[in-house]
Parts: sequence; C-alpha cells; structure tokens
Amino acid sequence: MTKIIGVDLGGTKILARMVDPTTGESKGRVKRPTPKTGPADVLAKVADVVDELDPDRQCEAVGIGVPGLVTQSGVVTLCPNINGWDSPVDVASILSERLDRTVAVGNDVNVGALAEHRVGAGRGFSDMATVFVGTGVGGGLVLNDRLVAGDRGMAGEIGHVTTHVGGRTCGCGGKGHMEAYAGRAGLEAEARRRHAAGDENELVRLAGEGRIKSSFIEKAIKANDPVTLELIDEAVEALAISIGSMATLLDLPMVVLGGGVVDRLGQDFLDRIHSSPSFGGFGSHVCELRLAQRLDDAGVVGAAILAADAST
Amino acid sequence: MTKIIGVDLGGTKILARMVDPTTGESKGRVKRPTPKTGPADVLAKVADVVDELDPDRQCEAVGIGVPGLVTQSGVVTLCPNINGWDSPVDVASILSERLDRTVAVGNDVNVGALAEHRVGAGRGFSDMATVFVGTGVGGGLVLNDRLVAGDRGMAGEIGHVTTHVGGRTCGCGGKGHMEAYAGRAGLEAEARRRHAAGDENELVRLAGEGRIKSSFIEKAIKANDPVTLELIDEAVEALAISIGSMATLLDLPMVVLGGGVVDRLGQDFLDRIHSSPSFGGFGSHVCELRLAQRLDDAGVVGAAILAADAST
Repeated sequence: MTKIIGVDLGGTKILARMVDPTTGESKGRVKRPTPKTGPADVLAKVADVVDELDPDRQCEAVGIGVPGLVTQSGVVTLCPNINGWDSPVDVASILSERLDRTVAVGNDVNVGALAEHRVGAGRGFSDMATVFVGTGVGGGLVLNDRLVAGDRGMAGEIGHVTTHVGGRTCGCGGKGHMEAYAGRAGLEAEARRRHAAGDENELVRLAGEGRIKSSFIEKAIKANDPVTLELIDEAVEALAISIGSMATLLDLPMVVLGGGVVDRLGQDFLDRIHSSPSFGGFGSHVCELRLAQRLDDAGVVGAAILAADAST
Repeated sequence: MTKIIGVDLGGTKILARMVDPTTGESKGRVKRPTPKTGPADVLAKVADVVDELDPDRQCEAVGIGVPGLVTQSGVVTLCPNINGWDSPVDVASILSERLDRTVAVGNDVNVGALAEHRVGAGRGFSDMATVFVGTGVGGGLVLNDRLVAGDRGMAGEIGHVTTHVGGRTCGCGGKGHMEAYAGRAGLEAEARRRHAAGDENELVRLAGEGRIKSSFIEKAIKANDPVTLELIDEAVEALAISIGSMATLLDLPMVVLGGGVVDRLGQDFLDRIHSSPSFGGFGSHVCELRLAQRLDDAGVVGAAILAADAST
C-alpha cells in the first residue's frame, strides 16, 4: 500500500506524517506552529510542511484534518479556532494545485472517527460512532464503512443534542445540550457557578484561578467530593441518554469514546454510562462502548485514511 | 424504465402493484388477506399475488416491504404483526427461488422513507429522514441517497429515543421514549389514566370504550379540551426534542412527517414542532419539516424503489 501524507491542522500547530492507511503506521514527522495571520499563510505553511516531510514525492495523496466545517468538496466554511478564517476557503483546490497531489479535507473529529474505525477500537464494525469528550463534546459517524459528514459537514455533533429540556445553557447558546453537562468546559462552568453560590467544591479548590483540568476531575472523584460526584452523575446521564438514543436511531453495535475526560476516567466511566437506566432506547443495551485506541495520532492517521478512501 | 413489482406485506393484507420506480406511478393491483397460519403460507400467498399481478412476467424484480426487522440480505428476523412468525425466515432467498426473479426485502417504514425520498416530499435531498406518527412512531433514514437500515435492520427507530428522562413507560418497556408522548397509543394510555384519576377529558368522552382515533384528537383540540391541549403540548415537545437532535446528529436539511396523527393535525402541527424552543441542537433551526406526500401507496412504491436500488 502506498503511503499517504496525513496532516493534522490545529489551532496552534500543524503536524504531518507519512501514513500507511491500511495499518495506521506512520513515519517521518514535521510539526510547525500554525500562523496567526489568516488562511492564506496557514495553507502556505501546510504546503511547506508537506514539502519538508516528503521532498522526494513518495506520496501521491494528502489528507488534511481541520477544526472546522468542511463541505464534501473540501471547502472549509467555518473554522473559528484558526485566526482570521472569516470566509469559506477552498482548501482542497488550493492545496492540490500548490502541491500537485490529490488532496482530501475533512473535519478533525470526523477523521478521528475514521482512524478508530479502520485501525483502532472500531476495526471490524461497518457501523459505529465516536464520541470525544474533551473541552466540548464532538463526534463522528461511520455507516456502511464510510464517513457520514452530512449536508453541511456538521454530522456527528452529538454534543448538541438535547438531553435536559430547558437545562444548562450550552456554549453554542442552546439549552440543555449534552455538552453542557459532559464537556469539561460545561462541568467547569457549573462547578464555578456552584462555588460562587457557596457550594464549595474540590474542583475549584484544585484549579484555583486556572482551568479545571481533566486530571483535577479525576482527583476530585477519588476524594469523594460531593459536588464533583453530582456533576459526574449528570455527565453520565447526559452521555447515556444521547449515546443510547444515537445507538437506537442508527442501530449501532458499538460506540468508541475518547477525549481528555474519557482518557482520565477510563473504562469505569464507560461502564457507568452503559449501565445507566438512561442508556435507553430500542436494542441499545447490546451496543458496546469501547475506549478509543488512537490517541495523539488519530488526526494524521484519519486524514490519511480519508484521502485513501477518496481515491478508491 | 422497466417496471418493478412492489409488495406491501401487512399484518392483515398483502397488496401488490407494478411500479415505475423513477416516477412512482403504479398500475395493476392485487390485494389479498394475509394468511394467519405462519410464514410459509404467507410467502406462498405473496408468490400467488405476484403471479396473478404479472402472469406474463413483465417485471424482472420484486420489492417487498415487511412490518418487521430485516437484515441486509433479506432475512426477516422478527415480525410480531404476522401470526406465527417466531423465528428468522430468509424471505429474499425463498421468494427469489419461487418467483425466479430478483427479490429485495425491507422494513415497511424504511421503504416508505425511500418513497418519500425519491418520488415524494423529499425529492432533491440527498440526506433526509421520515417520521411516521401513528399508533406508534416509526422512521426511516436516507443518507447519501441510500436507505440506512442499520446493523440489525433497526435504524430509524426515533420513537424510542429518550426525550423525558424517567418519564412515561413506552410500549417497548423503556422509560420516557418519544413514542410514549407522541404516538396515538401513548396519548390514549395517558388520556385514560388521567380520566380514571378524575381528570375527565374529551378524548375519552368521544371514544368511549373504543380506540381514541386520530380524528378524536383533532376534534378535542378544536374543542379546546384542556387535557388534550396539554397532551399535544407534550407530544410537540417530544417530537421537537427528538427531531431537532436527529437533525443535529445527522446534519439533515429536511425531515418528512407522516402517519395518521400527522395526516389529521397537518401543517399547523409541523409548525408548532419547528417553532418549539425544544427544537434545539446545532444548526437544526435550518432543518425544514414537510408533510409526507405518498400516503397509502408508500409501501408498494418504496418496496419497488428498494428493488430498483438493489439492482443498480
């Protein structure tokens, strides 16, 4: 199998590796800071990174994962985490011309789902979903062995399904979305709100003025901090409702969970979600939950798989 | 375009027509009662119906919609509405041998979704879902112009997603599922429960000992019966939560609603769902809701389209 260049374009860094999309093995590694001066400079830097990684043109195709909304043809319509990206940019066309290679572009969380599907915890399942619980909650869907990106490239956004009618305000402005309960930022906001209201808790004590990191959540659980335990109960319920409902709606045999919060809380956290009475639906009890296997490299590996899929 | 035989195999009748899958137009019509003596007799009757409809073998392919769970290869694993169907039956193999034609088998609600997609309210949309609100609530998903049937043939079961944590018991035994609020049977159960508890209402008054039909729901709304209005508010909320969340998860531009309850309550009901604050999610506000266009013939037309898709 020919190697393919996988690029993980993030808000702070650009990472590229040469990936074998059938095994997920990578070689070479170039990493540069993401320019803060707008998309033209960002794409020029991506091209430089590819040139540096593969000066002899061993790879004919390039896959790129982007933290934004991507259309089927590779136009990035929205990319709030990269400075100055204030209108749609046809990343696929611009880079395929500049690099003289086939270029595929996908959402970073979606390509992460592809990595789990092909060379991670989802091997052997034609239908599966991934749920990444970090600062927010993102997700990706693979049905019939293919990524489902959606009409506007927004499919898989399970963090924004409603689990608590009229509940907490989400980062997106909606009410009662799962992410407001299960995401690290939602948990932090609620812990600080309670702390300010006199309901002191270990999370705020550990973090002080700083961010409430996933490691603090782990510590506060181990210390049996009552507020933390209550917030985690709510997170488990929000994940159970939304994942159970997704498994019902899509008849999924398996869902992979990953991201900073899940990496910290591990299999116990998955078991609590799975055994929750809120993990309801129709046949959802047979839907297995597994920990993600591809951690830091899901972006580059998934991007390369996206490019390999696009050329078959 | 060659015509294809579409068969709607129901719990009480078998209906077959010759369908042009590109236009949805049908001709010929054979309708027989469904035998109550088990699947072997039912399949023999289906074959007789096909022979009678198409004695000159004008049609090379047959599509069948079945009220049960169907695997990708056409095995019906579960079919509670047909007497004696107590183990999986390979309907596709048995009938393709008996009829000497290509046979495709799908769930009846799923093939109804295909009919709406190709020759109904969903024309022109690559991604869409249908939600049929009748006695229960069923649904079907079309993504990238193809039916999504799911790992066990159970995809699209939006009636069993959780909208009210710990809420009413659903027909399936789950708690707080959408169907328990929006389906006619769920509404009837709650109206009778309230009536028995002294909360008299127009629905029970109109129906007496009989079934609370969709037409009674329409009448009770027009009479401003307070219990009915409250139950309909809850139904609207359950539909808004679940459809908004599905539109978010799958990035759907459009959802088609049909079924007995929707046929009665019409566009006003759809507008209430769409404008509900519970129709939340991420970009779901741009998801349009449309009334189904294929009513009684969705089964035969959709079954024929399934067979046409299978042979391309």
